[in-house]
Amino acid sequence: LTEGIGQIMVQSFVQNFVHDFALRGFLLILLGALLISKPAGAQQPALNLLPMPSSVHAGAGSLRVDSRFSVALTGYTEPRLERGVERFLRQLMGQTAIPLNLKPAKSGQATLLIRTDHASKEIQEVGEDESYSLEVTPAGETLIAPNPLGTLHGLQTFLQLVDISTDGFAVPAVNIQDRPRFPWRGLMIDSARHFIPLEVIRRNLDGMEALKMDVFHWHLSDNQGFRVESKRFPKLQELGSDGFYYTQDDIRDVIAYARDRGIRVVPEFDMPGHSTSWFVGYPELASAPGPYEIERRWGVFDPAMDPTKESTYQFLDEFIGEMAKLFPDQFFHVGGDEVNGKQWDASKEIQEFMRAHGIQNNQALQAYFNKRLQPIVEKHGKSMIGWDEILDPALPKDITIQSWRGQASLAAAAKQGYRGILSNGYYLDLGWPASRHYAVDPMSGDAANLSPEEQKRILGGESCMWAEYVDAENIDSRIWPRNASIAERLWSSAEVRDTASMYARLDVVSTRLEWRGLTHKTSYWRMLHRIAGAATPEEFAALRTLTEQLEPVKDYTREQTAPVEPTSLTPMNRVVDAVPLESAAGRRFGELVDKFIAASCLDADAGARLRTQFAAWSDNDARLAPLAKRSLLVREAAERSRDLSALGTMGLAALDAISKRQPPPGSWKTRQLATIEQLKKQKAQLLLIPVPAVQKLVEAATGGTCMGAK
Amino acid sequence: LTEGIGQIMVQSFVQNFVHDFALRGFLLILLGALLISKPAGAQQPALNLLPMPSSVHAGAGSLRVDSRFSVALTGYTEPRLERGVERFLRQLMGQTAIPLNLKPAKSGQATLLIRTDHASKEIQEVGEDESYSLEVTPAGETLIAPNPLGTLHGLQTFLQLVDISTDGFAVPAVNIQDRPRFPWRGLMIDSARHFIPLEVIRRNLDGMEALKMDVFHWHLSDNQGFRVESKRFPKLQELGSDGFYYTQDDIRDVIAYARDRGIRVVPEFDMPGHSTSWFVGYPELASAPGPYEIERRWGVFDPAMDPTKESTYQFLDEFIGEMAKLFPDQFFHVGGDEVNGKQWDASKEIQEFMRAHGIQNNQALQAYFNKRLQPIVEKHGKSMIGWDEILDPALPKDITIQSWRGQASLAAAAKQGYRGILSNGYYLDLGWPASRHYAVDPMSGDAANLSPEEQKRILGGESCMWAEYVDAENIDSRIWPRNASIAERLWSSAEVRDTASMYARLDVVSTRLEWRGLTHKTSYWRMLHRIAGAATPEEFAALRTLTEQLEPVKDYTREQTAPVEPTSLTPMNRVVDAVPLESAAGRRFGELVDKFIAASCLDADAGARLRTQFAAWSDNDARLAPLAKRSLLVREAAERSRDLSALGTMGLAALDAISKRQPPPGSWKTRQLATIEQLKKQKAQLLLIPVPAVQKLVEAATGGTCMGAK
Repeated sequence: LTEGIGQIMVQSFVQNFVHDFALRGFLLILLGALLISKPAGAQQPALNLLPMPSSVHAGAGSLRVDSRFSVALTGYTEPRLERGVERFLRQLMGQTAIPLNLKPAKSGQATLLIRTDHASKEIQEVGEDESYSLEVTPAGETLIAPNPLGTLHGLQTFLQLVDISTDGFAVPAVNIQDRPRFPWRGLMIDSARHFIPLEVIRRNLDGMEALKMDVFHWHLSDNQGFRVESKRFPKLQELGSDGFYYTQDDIRDVIAYARDRGIRVVPEFDMPGHSTSWFVGYPELASAPGPYEIERRWGVFDPAMDPTKESTYQFLDEFIGEMAKLFPDQFFHVGGDEVNGKQWDASKEIQEFMRAHGIQNNQALQAYFNKRLQPIVEKHGKSMIGWDEILDPALPKDITIQSWRGQASLAAAAKQGYRGILSNGYYLDLGWPASRHYAVDPMSGDAANLSPEEQKRILGGESCMWAEYVDAENIDSRIWPRNASIAERLWSSAEVRDTASMYARLDVVSTRLEWRGLTHKTSYWRMLHRIAGAATPEEFAALRTLTEQLEPVKDYTREQTAPVEPTSLTPMNRVVDAVPLESAAGRRFGELVDKFIAASCLDADAGARLRTQFAAWSDNDARLAPLAKRSLLVREAAERSRDLSALGTMGLAALDAISKRQPPPGSWKTRQLATIEQLKKQKAQLLLIPVPAVQKLVEAATGGTCMGAK
Repeated sequence: LTEGIGQIMVQSFVQNFVHDFALRGFLLILLGALLISKPAGAQQPALNLLPMPSSVHAGAGSLRVDSRFSVALTGYTEPRLERGVERFLRQLMGQTAIPLNLKPAKSGQATLLIRTDHASKEIQEVGEDESYSLEVTPAGETLIAPNPLGTLHGLQTFLQLVDISTDGFAVPAVNIQDRPRFPWRGLMIDSARHFIPLEVIRRNLDGMEALKMDVFHWHLSDNQGFRVESKRFPKLQELGSDGFYYTQDDIRDVIAYARDRGIRVVPEFDMPGHSTSWFVGYPELASAPGPYEIERRWGVFDPAMDPTKESTYQFLDEFIGEMAKLFPDQFFHVGGDEVNGKQWDASKEIQEFMRAHGIQNNQALQAYFNKRLQPIVEKHGKSMIGWDEILDPALPKDITIQSWRGQASLAAAAKQGYRGILSNGYYLDLGWPASRHYAVDPMSGDAANLSPEEQKRILGGESCMWAEYVDAENIDSRIWPRNASIAERLWSSAEVRDTASMYARLDVVSTRLEWRGLTHKTSYWRMLHRIAGAATPEEFAALRTLTEQLEPVKDYTREQTAPVEPTSLTPMNRVVDAVPLESAAGRRFGELVDKFIAASCLDADAGARLRTQFAAWSDNDARLAPLAKRSLLVREAAERSRDLSALGTMGLAALDAISKRQPPPGSWKTRQLATIEQLKKQKAQLLLIPVPAVQKLVEAATGGTCMGAK
């Protein structure tokens, strides 16, 4: 819409101020060509839609949302759609605070007329039609979809369009045609390392619905916990979960909740490694006698199932049979990652078995295990999926590979005829910025060279929330809002990749996800207050000024940098547990510095804002000091507080030099850069995010366009 | 504790730097005298206890709270205590994020040893012993109480003591002896005018538990809704509630939930006025034939029960009989307020009845109604309570008066032998600051002159949350944190009345109430985001800068100032619905101005902070303008935004004059004061809170100590 206005403004400028008619005609033609030739990704209207639909055409005017707003279901209908409409109306009430009638309207009088053509599959399948079309005019709205999956998606699109306007709450007139690029758009949550309560699972399903994600991959067992009730093998949960597990009724509830939101639930039981918790109750499954205890540490451990005993497969046959009935989805995830093979190496019997069967190495032994496992999974009506370690040409083409170690294995699998999904690049626990996840495309890298038929085997991707450092309190803030950038990558066209646009929409989505019940913002607040204790408002403000410029250490460095070895029993109440994995304030500060420098440091407003920020940082350590003295949890971050103040002082000096257009001596720059190298290092497992931006300013103050523009 | 340290510091200063021995001795004696002669209210240690206990003696050292923390119940025990301990441990986990074992410990090994002497009453009664004693040492903690009510209170005191320290989470060593001043410490919630969902009721009971309030007065019927399921008279809820009512199971759940927290539930069914919703299903109860509809407007309306028909009392006998079984509490609230008598005046039959029975006027007719009602209430085993309109010497002394129209009626009732509770001065919906509620004492005014025996009849008080302008979303922010100041008034000694101390502790309590699930802070945030729509972070910050200096209009002016007549269906999504009833930022700004002026405007730090604040205000309207253009809900407050900027500019001018010690011409002052008078008026039903403080600065800039101190 703003683009349309921009176009009109330029046109009227040309018409009013270019008096040479020939030049005027030329400019108008050029303008038209420019607008037409823009790449698809840049033609997005300024609507806060995320993921961006396949096609959006803005109309004229808008549809008011007031207390007369009503919905009618026509065509095919079912209880799920009725519940979906009621949920939609409740969400709309939450967004507007306008009391609405939750009962369906007669079709002739409805503001929103829904037409669904036919049912979707009884058990939701990968690759079902999820398309919909949405037409909003000032008179009303029509949502048309082949089946309920598209209808549910279309309702979410409508909710994103509702915003406060000059005329109250309204939706701009628009015509949207939409369908996903990939059929598999998943989020994996690890409920094994830390137990994640049901209500947290549910609110994350609400978040997935808002972002049109359609697969909840549930990591349900690992060394640190077995989280599902088995009636056949009750010692799994009784001895393997510390009492923290989901009953079969809980599981059924979650599956129904997910289905209502167009989401499949794929269970994962990781085997033959990552399975210590199984062995507490059933040590006979393992490759060494035991006894076993629930693992409290993080990492890769030795215990693994014994692939050489028939009893292992008998157990798995019965167990998978039970779970296959509990989880209706066609896919069954067997894990298969990170088997270190040490128990296998150490077992005389296993070594003898390998020799007797000509199994060359542990990788081949795991392939043997998978060859035995796959028919069991198939026998129970499921299609096997596993991490990329299970990729082996001896397995039938029905299995699916989840690529976590790199994008190459995804392409390799597709080339060999296997289906695959991408998770490499989508690990939420590594603490990457949304922009970095956003840049990862399942079809890039080796996949770009696949044939069209091979490419079809790439079903999509999944973000992964591994739970070493998350629990019920902070998990939302580790998933959201960054996960929304992955949702857009998997739904929208590959050409939709304007990072600035993504972040602008992400800010809006992030607020609205809180309205849906997610706690990624409020939990940060809560945790910060715990850290601050009974601080004064001024002290708390100082703590916030510090923490909003901090992020936890990235990638796999958290264990290495830990002050004491972390376990599943370690309280997660430190600053590193509280601060978001991507600092919005830090990102905006970086953008401000870039803007300032891009304008040759002549942008007075940006300069003034930088100065205010630096001055606040420079004073902040003194403001925080009394609190740091009293609170152990604040004190841990005290060194970072001094660092932030040092950075503020450095920034002020750089701005002074720039405003005087008088570069400081070379020794100053050398000293600052040495300090900056120190500031870039983690302390208390915390990174100081604005350091690289201040480095740019120091560089700018000692040469280049800024100093030349005196 | 800080006071203790202060004492030691002053003593050591005297000993080290005062070398004249005679003077030194004199100073030390003087110092001792000063400390001893402090009023009780000021001797509070710097612990964040609210309500302040009867006696607090600080010990040496502190008790660490770590993962080994455990609790043992000894003496009398019951399931309620076991649930209470588990809830306590969960709350402690929430406060610290330290994983704790929820199972009780053997008494010898417990960190916290609880000893409860005996059971409390089966049905909680007014005036039961609620005392407890709590002794914390570095080695452990003992909580002793005569019965479970005191035990529950003591656990809450302990939770308030837990804070982050230099040594992790800890509780300072302390000995507390505590008991309430008044036995009746209530909160009334009006669920009739707007329906308040169960989870909101429950979280408010959690808040009451934290503040040791012991009566939940539930206003369940009014003109705008009848909110309880009656099986005997089902048209009450079927036709009188729009479907929004509590089932009898819901009610039983709430009562059990309250009892677990040491809280009685007193139901109120308002009669004979405030009862239109009854008449929708049962018009024969009314004094005019009907038909009736649920009232949507606010105010006092004509419909009233017909006190002259026997059928009215037959209905009430059956209805009260049913409700008396549902609500176990000994008290039954019959309302009785605001009968305007117009239906009575207009009814020939009623007028004839009055003549025949020698009933002089409508007040006497209501007294007749109450005389008939009271035996019905008593017959069903209950003691009648009502608003002060029911006070009539003809009623037996068993009834209790809830005084809302003034404090005099409370004393009058006590003098006549009736028991009473105070609500005048505790109406949360009037928007008073906490300090004003805090200053209202049930024993002040006429009550101060009562005999000791008469004073005993004053049982306590109740804050009241009338629901014209609250719903599930904003009700918490209308109750909390201000309600905590009333909780302290009713629990703590009359000498505890240091407003600054109360506010300092209230800030901490407010944060912790959010941890308990109350949403008074987060709902404001949520509503502000709705008002802002898809604002940029800068625009949102500008909106926040404005709204944190605003409060809704006070007392009963909301109807008169409304742009259109509000009803129970009016969306509550405006700025006036979102901003807290007491602005913490506004209060702190006022304190800063007072501090600055008290230091003859020579406090450089305060001056600098004021300047920063004024500069931000002065610029703020320009920052907010783009958003005000786009959002109808922001635009409504646009005039207040210009006012805030004007106030900022005025403040800067005053500071300039003060810093130059150069008073501006008299015409300047006249102009500013004229502007200030305009700024004091409501606009968009919003008050600009810092106006009086800026007025003080303008006065200071034009004379007085500040200008004399040149």
